Amino acid sequence: MTGTTPSTSAAAAVRIDDLPIRDELRGQSPYGAPQLHVPVRLNTNENPYPLPDELVDRIAERVADAARELNRYPDRDAAELRTKLAAYLSETGGVELGTANVWAANGSNEVLQQLLQAFGGPGRTALGFDPSYSMHALIARGTGTDWISGTRRPDYSIDLGEALAAIAEHRPNVVFLCSPNNPTGTALDPAVVEAVYDAAQAARPSLVILDEAYIEFSHGVSLLTLLEGRPNLVVSRTMSKAFGAAGLRLGYLAADPAVVDAVQLVRLPYHLSAVTQATALACLEHTGTLLGYVAELKQQRDRIVAELTGMGCEVTASDANFVQFGRFEDAHAVWQAILDHGVLVRDNGVPGMLRVTAGTDAENTAFLDAMRAVLKEINR
Amino acid sequence: MTGTTPSTSAAAAVRIDDLPIRDELRGQSPYGAPQLHVPVRLNTNENPYPLPDELVDRIAERVADAARELNRYPDRDAAELRTKLAAYLSETGGVELGTANVWAANGSNEVLQQLLQAFGGPGRTALGFDPSYSMHALIARGTGTDWISGTRRPDYSIDLGEALAAIAEHRPNVVFLCSPNNPTGTALDPAVVEAVYDAAQAARPSLVILDEAYIEFSHGVSLLTLLEGRPNLVVSRTMSKAFGAAGLRLGYLAADPAVVDAVQLVRLPYHLSAVTQATALACLEHTGTLLGYVAELKQQRDRIVAELTGMGCEVTASDANFVQFGRFEDAHAVWQAILDHGVLVRDNGVPGMLRVTAGTDAENTAFLDAMRAVLKEINR
Repeated sequence: MTGTTPSTSAAAAVRIDDLPIRDELRGQSPYGAPQLHVPVRLNTNENPYPLPDELVDRIAERVADAARELNRYPDRDAAELRTKLAAYLSETGGVELGTANVWAANGSNEVLQQLLQAFGGPGRTALGFDPSYSMHALIARGTGTDWISGTRRPDYSIDLGEALAAIAEHRPNVVFLCSPNNPTGTALDPAVVEAVYDAAQAARPSLVILDEAYIEFSHGVSLLTLLEGRPNLVVSRTMSKAFGAAGLRLGYLAADPAVVDAVQLVRLPYHLSAVTQATALACLEHTGTLLGYVAELKQQRDRIVAELTGMGCEVTASDANFVQFGRFEDAHAVWQAILDHGVLVRDNGVPGMLRVTAGTDAENTAFLDAMRAVLKEINR
Repeated sequence: MTGTTPSTSAAAAVRIDDLPIRDELRGQSPYGAPQLHVPVRLNTNENPYPLPDELVDRIAERVADAARELNRYPDRDAAELRTKLAAYLSETGGVELGTANVWAANGSNEVLQQLLQAFGGPGRTALGFDPSYSMHALIARGTGTDWISGTRRPDYSIDLGEALAAIAEHRPNVVFLCSPNNPTGTALDPAVVEAVYDAAQAARPSLVILDEAYIEFSHGVSLLTLLEGRPNLVVSRTMSKAFGAAGLRLGYLAADPAVVDAVQLVRLPYHLSAVTQATALACLEHTGTLLGYVAELKQQRDRIVAELTGMGCEVTASDANFVQFGRFEDAHAVWQAILDHGVLVRDNGVPGMLRVTAGTDAENTAFLDAMRAVLKEINR
């Protein structure tokens, strides 16, 4: 069956489309940014600061403790982790949340998948405002949920009138909001979230998901405070960005306890490993240090915005740890030109635009130097 | 929104059914064995042997290495881990498999979910032979796949004639086989797997999933050898049982490379955390020690079978690390009576039957003593 087995090496290799896969998957390719080995990688909104040594030691210690009981299934409800996440949200979000308000999974992608399994799925629809995090649409489709693509203004903010019209017209079962928005960096006005929520409830009872993956980098504050009195509102979060733990794959949500109960009807039992829970708990003991890095990254983000603007680029206002910039006749060619200077940024497919992650001071200098060179080449 | 927030503590709590969840979820409760704190827990087929100290140390070391780069996303393709899993299968399975033949995810539950997303889903059907691992049906339903429940003989083996008739009648898109079968312990004859595969291909091209979660405990051998020339056959495995790592949540599959490609169309990107990959790699360095425990557990399993048979119980022949036994007029009452003696076994809902996991020598002695006492009480 593999090329290493002599008896079949002569047989034609089986292709995906030879298999009885679902029709809509035929001819597709997997989601994912190119994983290229270049000196400066600013393409996946990772935090450039490695975890501090004392946190690495603490992770090893907590994981060793967990490993001594690894023959047993993990805590299916991840109660200690959810309690500590709720405490973090309460300390930083101006709200009072408890264990019952929080759910955690393998990355916010899995959180969103579970929400769509419970509230979306076959015969149901989800509405988002594109360009936004492309996994929203992909996870919707992966759960059999029809995706409706709403629009944004030229500055990538949401036009409330158009949003309310789209909700009234399509009556979606799930509405996605994203603030700060990926890949544009755009923050949402709380009044827009409130109005979208009200309209979504008026059209039919709908779940409204506010993706706050990048909220710790915002000039503004989390909209966790809106959860009060809105049982169909969910705020999703991640430890990948502000906590500098993309490798950990720990996403979580805050919502009314009934939403957390509902998600448990569709979650795979024991979905969250004991080592993931132990590592996340160690990270949550070092919140102060990690949020210190966030403050530095916000300064670097503002520096990138200022310097790109100074170069004459069109720069989208950013509340995240990345910056969308353009506008280029051939954005992909510019992406390649920057890569030729040893810096990997992201071509998200937003016409004319690219996205760069705020890295370390040195990485951002390398990017900005590359940009100056590329712009010279373009204008030559 | 929580009881801790004074302003809402007076408001009526929101219930799941107040939310806009899918209709088929209304009134349901989450899957999962009761997590009770009793002296002897023999209810979830966990391996009773903790990981050896040198492996715990190695896990801490590998996880610390991974934690130093935790700010970066994990290897999305888990290439090193898949290579080592392929090597393990090749060494123990009488086959020659490479990285391209293997895929890994958070527990075999997630492996099965991904397979059903790609090969099942809305408008498609999956057939299994019940009683079997109840997650097969639950994951099918969770992915919108219609579940068809085939039957077994009174001794819980599969009647090939009935199986082929069911396949011809229902023409399923996915067929589940399980050997050794959970919760009965029944191993499958290779000829049955071959005939089911052929029939499933004749009815329409279908994916056949052979769940070998417990294969290391079998008197017989893995059917990995059947993969050769059968591109629509998948063998699923787990590190939860033989590797004594239920807390790790590491499931994997072996199949034609095209199946692995297909799964990557539906997997969530970066689904497997860097700490999970690091821990699994450490465990795979200690395969020899861990398989030594398996040999001890097989002896304990055979002891349980012999002693329960000696007590006059009906005992299902077992190739797994657990034993199904009965037959009781009121199995749940017997389950409770055994629990009252401090031993937790599993009431899987198979009429008249219960299931006990092979634990340590002392745990099994406690269970067998409890059974003798309970049988006396019943026959009093």
